[in-house]
Amino acid sequence: MADPVAAEALADAGALHRMMSEVSAFGATPGGGVNRMAATPDEGRARDWLRGWLAAHGFRTFVDPIGNLVGLLDLAGDGAPLVLSGSHLDSQPFGGCFDGAYGVVAACQAALAVRAAGGRPTHNLGVVSWTGEEGARFQPSLIGSSVFAGLLGLQDALRIRDGDGVALGEALAAIGYRGADSIPRPAAYVELHVECGPELEAAGQSLGVMEGWWGAVKLRVSFLGAQSHTGPTPMAFRRDALRAAGALIAAIGDLADDANRDGPEVLYTSVGRLEVEPNSPNVVPGRATLFIELRSPRAEVLARAEAALTARIAAVAEGVRVGWRIDSRLHRPSGWFDPGLVALAQEMRPEARRLMTIAAHDAIPLSTLCPSVVVVTPSVGGMCHHEAEFTKPEDLEEGLRLLTAMLWTLCTR
Amino acid sequence: MADPVAAEALADAGALHRMMSEVSAFGATPGGGVNRMAATPDEGRARDWLRGWLAAHGFRTFVDPIGNLVGLLDLAGDGAPLVLSGSHLDSQPFGGCFDGAYGVVAACQAALAVRAAGGRPTHNLGVVSWTGEEGARFQPSLIGSSVFAGLLGLQDALRIRDGDGVALGEALAAIGYRGADSIPRPAAYVELHVECGPELEAAGQSLGVMEGWWGAVKLRVSFLGAQSHTGPTPMAFRRDALRAAGALIAAIGDLADDANRDGPEVLYTSVGRLEVEPNSPNVVPGRATLFIELRSPRAEVLARAEAALTARIAAVAEGVRVGWRIDSRLHRPSGWFDPGLVALAQEMRPEARRLMTIAAHDAIPLSTLCPSVVVVTPSVGGMCHHEAEFTKPEDLEEGLRLLTAMLWTLCTR
Repeated sequence: MADPVAAEALADAGALHRMMSEVSAFGATPGGGVNRMAATPDEGRARDWLRGWLAAHGFRTFVDPIGNLVGLLDLAGDGAPLVLSGSHLDSQPFGGCFDGAYGVVAACQAALAVRAAGGRPTHNLGVVSWTGEEGARFQPSLIGSSVFAGLLGLQDALRIRDGDGVALGEALAAIGYRGADSIPRPAAYVELHVECGPELEAAGQSLGVMEGWWGAVKLRVSFLGAQSHTGPTPMAFRRDALRAAGALIAAIGDLADDANRDGPEVLYTSVGRLEVEPNSPNVVPGRATLFIELRSPRAEVLARAEAALTARIAAVAEGVRVGWRIDSRLHRPSGWFDPGLVALAQEMRPEARRLMTIAAHDAIPLSTLCPSVVVVTPSVGGMCHHEAEFTKPEDLEEGLRLLTAMLWTLCTR
Repeated sequence: MADPVAAEALADAGALHRMMSEVSAFGATPGGGVNRMAATPDEGRARDWLRGWLAAHGFRTFVDPIGNLVGLLDLAGDGAPLVLSGSHLDSQPFGGCFDGAYGVVAACQAALAVRAAGGRPTHNLGVVSWTGEEGARFQPSLIGSSVFAGLLGLQDALRIRDGDGVALGEALAAIGYRGADSIPRPAAYVELHVECGPELEAAGQSLGVMEGWWGAVKLRVSFLGAQSHTGPTPMAFRRDALRAAGALIAAIGDLADDANRDGPEVLYTSVGRLEVEPNSPNVVPGRATLFIELRSPRAEVLARAEAALTARIAAVAEGVRVGWRIDSRLHRPSGWFDPGLVALAQEMRPEARRLMTIAAHDAIPLSTLCPSVVVVTPSVGGMCHHEAEFTKPEDLEEGLRLLTAMLWTLCTR
């Protein structure tokens, strides 16, 4: 008799590991990670591999205009509501193998197990790989899922350019993933991911379920100075954009230290990317552009940090006589995943630890469309966005079983 | 009767301006400058143009193993001592047209005037374009002249790699300028250059002569952190290489402010180039490499600043839990050009203002080989290493006349 336990017993752990090994070859780095940024030839080859696998296993495949790739199993017949699961195949530069790819591959294997388990499906089941989740090559992050959810305009998204000036639309066309299909709106979305944080490992748990997400503010700020010779230009005449950037980077670190001094950490701050022009050893930089992130679970902490940052930008610029401008500013308020899906995860696995995600996931934009949730397995050492990112095989299998049980239940109820 | 005044009257100002216009087309930028970094195809085309001009005007041309290009006029016959004049054709990224190229082009026209003036030459006369003066694509600066002077080993120089990993030797071979000729050791070297500073303009003078040069310390320093996710990585666990770089950039600016507080500026500091890895908006940077310069006319000021900087590197690294290393450290002590050549410039033009150069020039390594000097014409607004760098036509002509008078005198005495 079909039930979630029977379904998860059909999930093929060996096949999961084989698929992980295959997908990790696309953009593999000598350090054991992957360099497979969105819409690059390597990511295109990983997409081709996934599409081939889906077609070979009886999925109907679709590519939408922003390149999201979906495979559908018509378990309940055409027109039935859709349960969707997946993640992304793009990576950070010299990132880890499991971030994203694990969620796609596990959804593939979970879908096979759900189909094999039978029962009386009331829903169809889809596997998805979203375009440009990482925000590494193209900003912002979560591009494909945000377009799908109607939060970002398709044309705006296609026009986003990478650091070399290549538009996302051109890059997708070059790898053959500027599709024309329409993907049905799901009734539920479940994403399996590696934790990318240290909490599960510290708690000795193999599974977690994200109840909600931290808020984030992302700013791109440019200081505009005057390019000149680092030799004969008197210090009093210099308008050094990098000097302003250095002062702001230091201040952004201090913002977090100040907010976190008296208790648990409630504010994370970073400058992950800095562009300097012309970036020549003996030229005073004329432009420096900072990619800044502020993250907090508390809206008032975030608002205070953003106000302090904005004031600091102006003060730093004035101090070294350069101009400044805020090139872009993105607010992602904190929020909650679907409580029913959180409860379902804990019904299947009572030990699954409730967490908040600080990293963004495609489930965040999806949650504006349909009930959505993220379930996670531990990252060794909490490490993520690094070649040495790792999740133990037995934990990968635990995640697959939980995902299978959840998807079977959602598809048959 | 031949004399310096007769010689300089033969210098062809129109031809100077035509040659400047021709050479400025190689690597021309829309902003009116040039992007003609060392041993790039554009710089190769500028070299070809110069070599063609030299050959067409009766110079014997030579290219030595580090790519220095020389044209010789045998005014006094084979084996006579050599007077050399020139500068460089390479530029900064989006640099100015006159920096370097003016000195090469003016030497060409001065040489024609000296030949035409006659007299009884006792010296031969050569025009030179040195390889890799700017230090923009390949570090350090002054590569070709340093190899020629025996201060930098040829093999070491050929192995220097640019930011993309291309070796200077390969780049020279690709443009056809890895030569095999030997260039005779000069008896005197005179370099004409634009001032790249504000002093002549402020003094209302058209000509200057550099008595000596400021000392410089150039360091490349790397902070070594740990690449991780800017989201879920707790602040307490981060090892952010860019945060350390930001703090050090701020401190390097403060070093100059402190040293210059109570009088004329005696310390210039800069970070012109910063490399960040992986430089993705949502990855804590694992490595940040700073290209730092300290410059001063006073050895004790430079030594004090270098010691303070070194202490600061360690303190900053410890404060944010990252490692550090000094990748390279170059000392260029301050020094003096040949007093006889300085006096000769002032004999020809008593109004020529005595200055100290803060920018390095090829005449600095040359001064270890033979009496050397730099004479300069004003830079409008003191601007340099910028597309808008400009020197007025009448000042360019003044510089050509002074150079011609000096070279004629040196060649005939």
